[in-house]
Amino acid sequence: MSESKPDAGAADRAIVDFRTDPSRYRHWKLSVDGRIATLALDVSEDGGLRPGYELKLNSYDLGVDIELYDAIQRLRFEHPEVGAVVLTSGKERVFCAGANIRMLNQSAHGWKVNFCKFTNETRNAIEEATAESRQAYVCAVNGPCAGGGYELALACDWIAMADDGNTSVSLPEVPLLAVLPGTGGLTRLVDKRRVRRDRADFFCTLEEGIKGKRAVEWGLVDEVVPRTRLDEAVRARAAERAAQTDRPAAGPGIALTPLARTVEGNRIAYRHVTCELSRERGIAEILVRAPADAPPADATGARALGDAFWPLALARELDDLVLHLRTNEDAVGLWVIRTMGSADRVEAYDRFLEAHESDWLVREVRLYLKRTLKRIDVSSRTVFALIEPGSCFAGTLLELALAADRSYMLDGTREDGAAPAAIRLTRLNFGAYPMVNGLTRLASRFLGAPGQVDDLEGRIGRDLDAAAAASAGLVTFTPDDIDWDDEVRVAIEARAAFSPDALTGMEASLRFAGPETLESKIFARLSAWQNWIFQRPNAAGPKGALAVYGTGQRSDFDRRRV
Amino acid sequence: MSESKPDAGAADRAIVDFRTDPSRYRHWKLSVDGRIATLALDVSEDGGLRPGYELKLNSYDLGVDIELYDAIQRLRFEHPEVGAVVLTSGKERVFCAGANIRMLNQSAHGWKVNFCKFTNETRNAIEEATAESRQAYVCAVNGPCAGGGYELALACDWIAMADDGNTSVSLPEVPLLAVLPGTGGLTRLVDKRRVRRDRADFFCTLEEGIKGKRAVEWGLVDEVVPRTRLDEAVRARAAERAAQTDRPAAGPGIALTPLARTVEGNRIAYRHVTCELSRERGIAEILVRAPADAPPADATGARALGDAFWPLALARELDDLVLHLRTNEDAVGLWVIRTMGSADRVEAYDRFLEAHESDWLVREVRLYLKRTLKRIDVSSRTVFALIEPGSCFAGTLLELALAADRSYMLDGTREDGAAPAAIRLTRLNFGAYPMVNGLTRLASRFLGAPGQVDDLEGRIGRDLDAAAAASAGLVTFTPDDIDWDDEVRVAIEARAAFSPDALTGMEASLRFAGPETLESKIFARLSAWQNWIFQRPNAAGPKGALAVYGTGQRSDFDRRRV
Repeated sequence: MSESKPDAGAADRAIVDFRTDPSRYRHWKLSVDGRIATLALDVSEDGGLRPGYELKLNSYDLGVDIELYDAIQRLRFEHPEVGAVVLTSGKERVFCAGANIRMLNQSAHGWKVNFCKFTNETRNAIEEATAESRQAYVCAVNGPCAGGGYELALACDWIAMADDGNTSVSLPEVPLLAVLPGTGGLTRLVDKRRVRRDRADFFCTLEEGIKGKRAVEWGLVDEVVPRTRLDEAVRARAAERAAQTDRPAAGPGIALTPLARTVEGNRIAYRHVTCELSRERGIAEILVRAPADAPPADATGARALGDAFWPLALARELDDLVLHLRTNEDAVGLWVIRTMGSADRVEAYDRFLEAHESDWLVREVRLYLKRTLKRIDVSSRTVFALIEPGSCFAGTLLELALAADRSYMLDGTREDGAAPAAIRLTRLNFGAYPMVNGLTRLASRFLGAPGQVDDLEGRIGRDLDAAAAASAGLVTFTPDDIDWDDEVRVAIEARAAFSPDALTGMEASLRFAGPETLESKIFARLSAWQNWIFQRPNAAGPKGALAVYGTGQRSDFDRRRV
Repeated sequence: MSESKPDAGAADRAIVDFRTDPSRYRHWKLSVDGRIATLALDVSEDGGLRPGYELKLNSYDLGVDIELYDAIQRLRFEHPEVGAVVLTSGKERVFCAGANIRMLNQSAHGWKVNFCKFTNETRNAIEEATAESRQAYVCAVNGPCAGGGYELALACDWIAMADDGNTSVSLPEVPLLAVLPGTGGLTRLVDKRRVRRDRADFFCTLEEGIKGKRAVEWGLVDEVVPRTRLDEAVRARAAERAAQTDRPAAGPGIALTPLARTVEGNRIAYRHVTCELSRERGIAEILVRAPADAPPADATGARALGDAFWPLALARELDDLVLHLRTNEDAVGLWVIRTMGSADRVEAYDRFLEAHESDWLVREVRLYLKRTLKRIDVSSRTVFALIEPGSCFAGTLLELALAADRSYMLDGTREDGAAPAAIRLTRLNFGAYPMVNGLTRLASRFLGAPGQVDDLEGRIGRDLDAAAAASAGLVTFTPDDIDWDDEVRVAIEARAAFSPDALTGMEASLRFAGPETLESKIFARLSAWQNWIFQRPNAAGPKGALAVYGTGQRSDFDRRRV
């Protein structure tokens, strides 16, 4: 099975760094022209993140997507004036062939799944930028657009396609590779673009895809235009959107400077976040610190701070840590989160984020925090929150405890006599940070007692001690000092002993009660099927479709339906 | 992997028959006392469907669930007077230990998945009986109630539990077996009973489960009562519900006589439905015939016909065929559905089902048709509908074409000069048969053009030829006589060449656009995760948790999170 892929060992142990910037891009060209930016995919064939494959035909691997993710982030923060982004190919004869097949074939199961999760999150970020940052993505399909390439187009608000003999859109994964489109393609087809299910069925079994008028008639793209007029047509769509944005007419933006991080042995340290790994126990102990200073006086002050503005710095650090742990520390199955510092200061920042929510930068910071918290929700790791004296689980930081699978709050004092732990709600707990299911963490938590959310709104700003937090349903367990160490230790040890796979499936099922959205359907429904298929011998076995792809051989499928 | 389980071969090839009746039950005791029925689980240890395991502790296998399914059906049809059903254990010291572990361990992957699907459908049938047949299920938990046992309780409208030292509810799958509860337990916990996610997390990692007041406080059960008062308490709950039912106060009901079926070589024949298998091509050709006679004059006439009433006979035959094909013909991946006969007659029956919908029997027949159509939707088989001259895809039978992944409709006549094919809508296409996502097949189909459903309502009762059906979006392709044979043949051959696993994931993703319900979340989200976990070495490998269960050994898990 894929667990034992020969290349999976050493190569996968090399640390993947998600930090980059445009000066280091090898695969994307980012240019800005007034209100409109262009992001052109021009993959360097020999620029794969791992040895063993060439990125032909503008196919991508994780490295290509890390750059895309960085570009999307920078456009939001560094280019407030940009109201629309044209996504296209920088190559003459191909738009994008999707995820690289040889890369997939040589990757371990976990790598494939984690890769798909990250690319999914990045596609969601494109849609969120369009809808909430008012930086709309439009796509110019200027050559064959297959698989993950079409999924990238599907994330855009408008898809224009060249009407020539060469250009089509396709999802050839099922007929060609015996896997599913891994980045939301099936769900976006029928749920976002609402393509009729029987047409979607036909389309998804067609290696060569669909071109021209039929692609428009079936809703696969929004328009087809002669190749010579494609740029002009897409620019017009971008200009329409840019004209409607509420983003500032001009910069300057906030420079996202290189994120300071030290990785030494078992310790990963940022300015506000540190993480201690106990690999043998499978635990990452994450500590988030409150801001050292009071918030600035106004939005101008926040802009002056740039990426040193605490909530932005926090989002960047947590985001990088989550990506790092997911990709580089897959045997660390339990993240234990603590906080430390002044809850008053955290609350003051929340008030700032609330008071200035119409400022473009504050909006971006809030959206970034939202995305980062969502990334935690969909991570295949257990999350425990430990709420102890000296902690500051208030408002935005309380979301970390609400995102946790369980929380333990120490009831009373320790021998050191420090004041008992308290948690505190702020206005931001009531709408700023919805989960992928569209609900706040509080609303998801209290689906069975919706009145509880209203009650809690009346308690914003008040310290809740362990007894109050427990009776309000905000924490799971509240041992006292005598029981704390044993109870927490036993919980952690027990968790580490369970099957990681069963925990992943269980957590994915329990975290997202209530309604479903495009995002939640992709993460749960589609990803789970994809995970299953990625394990099946028909796809990933020694004679599976991924292995024989390009060899001229045919897979000999086990024909039994499951 | 589980594909190569030693017992999987010969045992799994023995034909499973879903037809049974109370005189043949080995595991359930069904009794009726006025408005209240009791269904008591008393599993015969040596009554397993397959050799190799003993059904200890009231654990179950597919055979036990086939009897439960039969009992639920008979209660609806044979006992119109029953308004409430008490589900309990017939054993002194245990309620139910869930699915039998040794059975799971010796089963092939496909068997496990198919078993879980059927048990899920049966739990859904309990909930539907409660809500729509007004035959409410209440549960008396009179002993340890673990895993699938608790999932059975979760399907009931009320769970009363004995308050003694012995009785608890638990979902020990994750800690004990490294798999998920396979019959909707996780989703029912947080989505149906709305148990808080952190409590659910704790509960699902607790081998010993939860008993007494905490079980009520957490919402795991509805009440706990002293063991000596359990029967009385549950009977009171049942009586409350029976008093509110709109079912008739007295019988007689409709006897579900033994379903006539012949299985000879490649042919399965019922009265109105036949199926020809081409195992080497992986195809089942299913033919559904219109009723031979006009509908009865009134509901009394339908009752007089009993299970010979065409819509009821049709539902039973299709239901049995689907279950038979799923379980016994897993290498037949494509179901090709045709119809034959008078569309006028089919429409006349639909009018009958519409005119008499308040009659208890007609309601049951409609619900049965709904469940059977839903079973097709969630089957992991490709479904094609072929609409040819002489066919009768009208109303209820048109749902078969709407349930298909694709439909082909012959445009015009053949050489024989028979009248061109037509399809016809009836009122029943607009609400009688919702899918698991809560929408009609028409509404699901036209999510992208909701006005289309309203337009179609104006065309009820009219014949739509191929051109009209295509322009109304009701069929996928409309080849003429010249192209028909080749186009259909190529489509069938191409389908048979794709990976069965990839098709299963693709179909599950494309069929259910739009909203999600408890049912759809269980079938898609939960089942897909379960399928994945059932493939993982940590659960199903030679040293996985299922294999070492009961041996005293511990699994040595691959600790990497995926």
